Amino acid sequence: MKENNRNGHIKAAYQGEGGAFSEAAARRMLGANVEARPYRSFDHIFEAVARGEADCCVVPIENSLAGSVHKNYDLMLEHNLTIIAETTLRIVHNLIAMPGTDFSEVRRAYSHPVALAQCERFFRANPQIEAVTSHDTAGSVREIIERGRSSEAAIAGAAAARVYNAEIIAEEIEDNRQNFTRFLLLTLPEHATKIATEPRGNERKTSIVFSIKNQPGALFRTLAAFALRDIDLAKIESRPIEGRPWEYSFYLDLVGDIREQRVERALAHLAEMTETIKVLGAYSTAGALEGRAINDYSNEVGRN
Amino acid sequence: MKENNRNGHIKAAYQGEGGAFSEAAARRMLGANVEARPYRSFDHIFEAVARGEADCCVVPIENSLAGSVHKNYDLMLEHNLTIIAETTLRIVHNLIAMPGTDFSEVRRAYSHPVALAQCERFFRANPQIEAVTSHDTAGSVREIIERGRSSEAAIAGAAAARVYNAEIIAEEIEDNRQNFTRFLLLTLPEHATKIATEPRGNERKTSIVFSIKNQPGALFRTLAAFALRDIDLAKIESRPIEGRPWEYSFYLDLVGDIREQRVERALAHLAEMTETIKVLGAYSTAGALEGRAINDYSNEVGRN
Repeated sequence: MKENNRNGHIKAAYQGEGGAFSEAAARRMLGANVEARPYRSFDHIFEAVARGEADCCVVPIENSLAGSVHKNYDLMLEHNLTIIAETTLRIVHNLIAMPGTDFSEVRRAYSHPVALAQCERFFRANPQIEAVTSHDTAGSVREIIERGRSSEAAIAGAAAARVYNAEIIAEEIEDNRQNFTRFLLLTLPEHATKIATEPRGNERKTSIVFSIKNQPGALFRTLAAFALRDIDLAKIESRPIEGRPWEYSFYLDLVGDIREQRVERALAHLAEMTETIKVLGAYSTAGALEGRAINDYSNEVGRN
Repeated sequence: MKENNRNGHIKAAYQGEGGAFSEAAARRMLGANVEARPYRSFDHIFEAVARGEADCCVVPIENSLAGSVHKNYDLMLEHNLTIIAETTLRIVHNLIAMPGTDFSEVRRAYSHPVALAQCERFFRANPQIEAVTSHDTAGSVREIIERGRSSEAAIAGAAAARVYNAEIIAEEIEDNRQNFTRFLLLTLPEHATKIATEPRGNERKTSIVFSIKNQPGALFRTLAAFALRDIDLAKIESRPIEGRPWEYSFYLDLVGDIREQRVERALAHLAEMTETIKVLGAYSTAGALEGRAINDYSNEVGRN
């Protein structure tokens, strides 16, 4: 990752605490030297980039089991950031406790609701352990270490155990190993060329969001703009429009770059039919190497 | 609601605790006499119906601000229940505390993460109050009443305050009044005719779920089955397929009844193109009277 040394001065905002999956995603896309800065909420990280406190931000956008992180779709519509890269991590959940804790002592396991839901089989097999909702995976590790009780554990990635000098007492407790999260790297359009991201897959992707009048066949006609030009759609997602109950915006990832003529023409065609349309970014698709378990990436995740 | 007295023997499962929004939705669809039974999780209520412990269940499927309740889309695919009615409630959030509590004493407000997120403006205006995540809106009211501390409040609907003899100390604290939740009533196909639901809107809706091979233009071609027959789509939602990262099922609500010939033909046409297809139910759309604030429905919500 020699070429990424130049990102040493880059500040990348992420949601969570040291050891979060988003921090690992930031290092994956920007190299080990990037200055990864934790923030409390997704709102805060978008604002940090908008006002120049951070150069870019890394957000989870979709999990292969839980689905989309809708809050971040909404924030992309609200803020004027552009997507410049994506990456995919395999999510491995571990039961993490105070060093020396015996598994049989644990009575409560704290984590983010999504992580808890992804370990249902573990909780069914261990009814003596109660699942307790908390705000953050890595943050739960910090909290149980601060309290120092052997009856308490947290569920998080291996990096969080290292960051807080905690111990993994049960590994890979997630129900389904086909558990991947896709992360996006966003920045202000004027900074897009300053940030070095590794070239990855051979393909390019373009993300857009649009809204249409609610008429029979309206969505069908908009998709024609792509189908008639053989442009593949990687994803479509509907989100409610605030203040207009049961009307939706559509987020769409298409395979192709906005600089290709057929994509340019498809977007012009689409614009004839939409009420609003916004290009969220064009970027290289996650490469084939990605999606490896984040436990394999210990070199990428450490203390700042 | 005279015609609904016959639902007195009907047991309707819902997620949450007494005073939950889902309980109000159950009474709205089934009448005041229905026996509404609280369960801890969405999984539990689907299972309760599947094994005959409850006759039907009521689940939130979509909020006009937060979007879809994806867990319930997944459970509809997993279980063989059929949708027989829908209703829409306006969601009003209130700050609820021990009777006699003064607003200035409150330091923490407990609620479900979605409710907390819908009261962001309230928390910004009252920085002395910390938002604390809990599993349930109505359940938070029960818990703060059990603990009996004047520094603690919960955020929930007005019904929860009545059920637990708590006091509303700040009303309608949600950011956006265009806050509606759509609920579905589901039962086993063989019980569908035993349960009386009020006839509502003039229109019928049919809900389906299907999966397609990931090929360019695939979604476009499936939507053609409806567009070419002037069938309006009320909603489309994509959900990840478990174990097949970045492949999706599509949930679709169309305006029309499955017994209409054009709908029947559209579904036959669709089936030519899909890998799997399942009809989730056909039902009357929510009537014009619905969507009134649930605070207005005090007669519908009481102790069982």
